[in-house]
Amino acid sequence: MPRRSDAKIRAIVTAAKLFQRQGYHATGVQQIIDESGTPKGSFYFHFPKGKEQLAVAAVEMGATAVNQAIEQAVARAKGNPASLVQGIGKALSRSLEQTEHREGCPVATVALETTPGSGPLTQACHQAFSQWMDTASKGLMDCGVSRGKASELATLCIAAYEGALLLQRTEQSPRPFKTVIRFMEHLVKQVGDQENVAPQS
Amino acid sequence: MPRRSDAKIRAIVTAAKLFQRQGYHATGVQQIIDESGTPKGSFYFHFPKGKEQLAVAAVEMGATAVNQAIEQAVARAKGNPASLVQGIGKALSRSLEQTEHREGCPVATVALETTPGSGPLTQACHQAFSQWMDTASKGLMDCGVSRGKASELATLCIAAYEGALLLQRTEQSPRPFKTVIRFMEHLVKQVGDQENVAPQS
Repeated sequence: MPRRSDAKIRAIVTAAKLFQRQGYHATGVQQIIDESGTPKGSFYFHFPKGKEQLAVAAVEMGATAVNQAIEQAVARAKGNPASLVQGIGKALSRSLEQTEHREGCPVATVALETTPGSGPLTQACHQAFSQWMDTASKGLMDCGVSRGKASELATLCIAAYEGALLLQRTEQSPRPFKTVIRFMEHLVKQVGDQENVAPQS
Repeated sequence: MPRRSDAKIRAIVTAAKLFQRQGYHATGVQQIIDESGTPKGSFYFHFPKGKEQLAVAAVEMGATAVNQAIEQAVARAKGNPASLVQGIGKALSRSLEQTEHREGCPVATVALETTPGSGPLTQACHQAFSQWMDTASKGLMDCGVSRGKASELATLCIAAYEGALLLQRTEQSPRPFKTVIRFMEHLVKQVGDQENVAPQS
């Protein structure tokens, strides 16, 4: 059923864009159907549980795209941790940069609107952030950072970039993101000099 | 008109809580009217432009409360920058901690849902974050940090804490916030040793 499957992907891609731009609650099923050109019957065939089920698929799709971009940053960093955290920053800020600050993180808005109220969306958003932190952490280990420190630095990295995206969206300026990237570069460079970036937990 | 003014405050407080918990778009005027016990006529007397106007007031109220908590953290830090960034973290995470991860930042969710689409809300959210960064920056200067570094550290501080609140909400755990606070303490302690926390912009 190639047409049906194509309709499913179109609905997910359209929903992901709308959620990124205006959030989960502002986006109605009818708008997704209209903008994706998915027949209503086909929509409910693929997503019998409706918008929440589609949103889980949209968050997973957005999360996978960002994770692939982080993996590319790891490959390009070639063992240089400062280059790695810069690449991770670019992976997370790309869509905001490309859309004049309109489309931010594909997970954050849905997460703040629906967690912990929706179990399936809480799980999908949690998995998304965990996946990014794991990939960033493994990349830092490839750069010679110890497992414990890599995990902590990866948490700081994703947290600080997510917050910077939020500030950037309201400031309509790349200033917060640039400041945060500089600090992250500085912090991971220290790791090269001393495995003592933050006090032990 | 004491009753009318009281109704206005009740509507703002109720809206702020609902926005924190479920976001801007999921919250209807009728729910705010019902939960605050504000008569409909009184609601539209105080907010003739409707929900957007009320949301600006709710964001401003939430922003002021957080800013006062940051000011208290500055006063309590008594010149100790590590104590200051810990206090700022607590000021930002207090409502999430107190509500089992249900009520996060009073600005972030509304910001991600409505900026840059809504001019008045974009401005209110931008002012909120700017105010917090200014207060944090002045507090860092009170701890002996130079103006330029204090401003950059304040940006990182607010960004990292906002991101940590987001991760905490999906993880349902204080882990991300604790990790970020430790890094912030470490970074500002360095300032005591050397005014060289991040490379110059």
